[in-house]
Amino acid sequence: MWNMDICDIAAGAKKASIELAAMDSQRKNAALEAIRSSLKSHQDKIIAANIEDMAAAQMAGLSTPLLKRLKFDAAKIDEVCKGLDSLIKLNDPVGKTLSATELDNGLELYQVSCPIGVIGVIFESRPDALVQISSLCLKSGNAVLLKGGSEAAHTNKILADLISNATLQAGMPAGWLGLLETRDDVTAMLKLDDYINLIIPRGSNAFVRHIMDNTRIPVMGHADGICHVYIDKAANIDMAVKITVDSKCQYAAVCNAAETLLVHQDIAAAFLPLLKAAMDEKKTELRGCEQTRKIIDCKPATEEDWKTEYLDYILSIRVVSSLSEAIDHINHYGSGHTDAIVTEDKQAASCFLRRVDSADVFWNASTRFADGFRYGLGAEVGISTHKLHARGPVGLEGLVIYKWLLAGKGHIVENYSGPAAKAYTHKKLDTHWTFQQ
Amino acid sequence: MWNMDICDIAAGAKKASIELAAMDSQRKNAALEAIRSSLKSHQDKIIAANIEDMAAAQMAGLSTPLLKRLKFDAAKIDEVCKGLDSLIKLNDPVGKTLSATELDNGLELYQVSCPIGVIGVIFESRPDALVQISSLCLKSGNAVLLKGGSEAAHTNKILADLISNATLQAGMPAGWLGLLETRDDVTAMLKLDDYINLIIPRGSNAFVRHIMDNTRIPVMGHADGICHVYIDKAANIDMAVKITVDSKCQYAAVCNAAETLLVHQDIAAAFLPLLKAAMDEKKTELRGCEQTRKIIDCKPATEEDWKTEYLDYILSIRVVSSLSEAIDHINHYGSGHTDAIVTEDKQAASCFLRRVDSADVFWNASTRFADGFRYGLGAEVGISTHKLHARGPVGLEGLVIYKWLLAGKGHIVENYSGPAAKAYTHKKLDTHWTFQQ
Repeated sequence: MWNMDICDIAAGAKKASIELAAMDSQRKNAALEAIRSSLKSHQDKIIAANIEDMAAAQMAGLSTPLLKRLKFDAAKIDEVCKGLDSLIKLNDPVGKTLSATELDNGLELYQVSCPIGVIGVIFESRPDALVQISSLCLKSGNAVLLKGGSEAAHTNKILADLISNATLQAGMPAGWLGLLETRDDVTAMLKLDDYINLIIPRGSNAFVRHIMDNTRIPVMGHADGICHVYIDKAANIDMAVKITVDSKCQYAAVCNAAETLLVHQDIAAAFLPLLKAAMDEKKTELRGCEQTRKIIDCKPATEEDWKTEYLDYILSIRVVSSLSEAIDHINHYGSGHTDAIVTEDKQAASCFLRRVDSADVFWNASTRFADGFRYGLGAEVGISTHKLHARGPVGLEGLVIYKWLLAGKGHIVENYSGPAAKAYTHKKLDTHWTFQQ
Repeated sequence: MWNMDICDIAAGAKKASIELAAMDSQRKNAALEAIRSSLKSHQDKIIAANIEDMAAAQMAGLSTPLLKRLKFDAAKIDEVCKGLDSLIKLNDPVGKTLSATELDNGLELYQVSCPIGVIGVIFESRPDALVQISSLCLKSGNAVLLKGGSEAAHTNKILADLISNATLQAGMPAGWLGLLETRDDVTAMLKLDDYINLIIPRGSNAFVRHIMDNTRIPVMGHADGICHVYIDKAANIDMAVKITVDSKCQYAAVCNAAETLLVHQDIAAAFLPLLKAAMDEKKTELRGCEQTRKIIDCKPATEEDWKTEYLDYILSIRVVSSLSEAIDHINHYGSGHTDAIVTEDKQAASCFLRRVDSADVFWNASTRFADGFRYGLGAEVGISTHKLHARGPVGLEGLVIYKWLLAGKGHIVENYSGPAAKAYTHKKLDTHWTFQQ
């Protein structure tokens, strides 16, 4: 099946998506269960394919962190199976009545959640991502076209084959999952806006921008993650140090790690020396503005630093004269991902949370909490810094949309028009829409 | 102010959008009230500007229906003022708590609705659209850049000036509304993805496609409106005729009018002659498939007809052998706008509503009901046939998104990591987030 033309694969996925949209929760959960069993019973085959990928990657001189992400052993398989278990327990996001309105006697309008349709996901060399993304799509009733990192080609192929076969046997429509194997396949996919409803690219800023510039299909995801911590003048200094250290150093290479620290001038002299001591312990390089460098010894920060996602043990620091200067800095230089304020002042916190234009805005908590698992969403397909549809960590709820269902008894618009027009009642209903099986 | 560079106007709108997002409902409603008063008290000036536009349009030989849409007299001003009154009465879509979760003791996550930011709307030569769109944006806390039809330039300019001045005096931030005056302005706007979060183009299919191909900014709207009515074998024939006539003829030139009629073969012989009689009365041309033409006398329909939005008194007819053939036809040739089934069979209706992949799916009701006012949404900024964010008629709710607010007491991720990791509670909360003023 993987040798089909991309256009055929996409057309097949669209056809499958219609059937998948009409699947009930029980059957979708049984299919997820079937994936779990299949991964378990074919564990040896999966590990063998992964060893092939790992060997090639070592030959090609991949770095140790990348090799670690590529590795898919028994422990990782256990982990994705646990993930499948929790996904099965989550509520079905499809078929929920979001609103119900009587337009007139016997004419009822329901807004009901439904899948988006066909989703194209381009992801990094982490085979567990393939299992997570495809199972989230299945649970939310979406067909999916997947393109993983080429380093993981063998592992991805066996995983996609196992998932396709297991779900087909569990009654899911053929073709709901398609695996793309080359870059040319991706280029071809970006043109198929008749079949594909959403592209989720995971990767570097430049990569995401490239995708957005080359497709008419809506794109969801994030480019940069330039996150800020702002230490307000009313901050608890001890808490401020701990949150800054966690936001920067708990895992520096990820998008929700902080890159810039903003400090109110009234607290800078008391706070910065304590922060420097803590950061020295973590071997983190500090780059400060002029005012920062009057208080602690560090490299100078330039304009370029405010725009940089280091993804490393480096933190830029700027002293600001007010809360609103901090908010302006974040809205100007930030990437709309995650920004935190540390303060004991409720009003200052409220002002910050309301005016900072980011997907995740935190009060007295580390930026590192911005994550689908931590939020209780189950897994996540990605983090969105866009401002349409879904924002921040995107789980099941972000993979559905709605349709409007209107049920009448022969109602026509003509009766609600002209001088003798009937009036609409527009009465909110408590009823829920239920599909007949 | 209208002579500013587009980039400055957009930057000003972004700045204003931050303040507008933090505005409380009472002040936004007072600003809407101020618009209403200003339109009333400057009625003569508005009408004078419109007479100028009308005269130029007549000189240029605009058609009567277009002239009718361009006209903005005392009656139309009354109508938009009534629209403002109902908008004031609607609930504020901003600041609603969509979900609330305790992640751990003292660490609470709120998903709260907020404005999208800056919206660019390109609309047709109907001055009432300017008032409707800008007031919907204001109520939902969004800044807006507007480009109306050039025929309405004088009317639009005075309306935009009056709205800007009235709302500025009512405490809204300067620059929340920007008026673009030329096509070059639109071209420039499409490049400003740093400032603009959403483009809503209203117009022809070709125009919407052109916009989508020339911007990185998300686009919401509809291109075609190829709507279908399907007469099931279990239809009430009298109802089927009435719904078809209303769907096609109640207002033929609009996107929610039906273009193609699908008829189950078992009911075709009984239904089609009655339909023909009714359509002859409405002077509507019928174009039928071969089977249709065996039953009634009409022009032949070609493959091209199934793909055509006539926007005129023409209806294509196809006889199908089953419900699923009807569904396949709609999902293949339709535009995902509005499609209706006429049937007394609940299960057939359920199957149709679930599998037809359109924004609006109707059972025993005319396609013409697909409209923001009829749905009780207040006004609409447009109708979306996209499958992300908002679908069908888009009112206030479609103009907001959400942000995640996390409030802790110094919580850091480090404590939830590694072998001694604390567990998340992920307990649903009934509390709502309230911003401090």
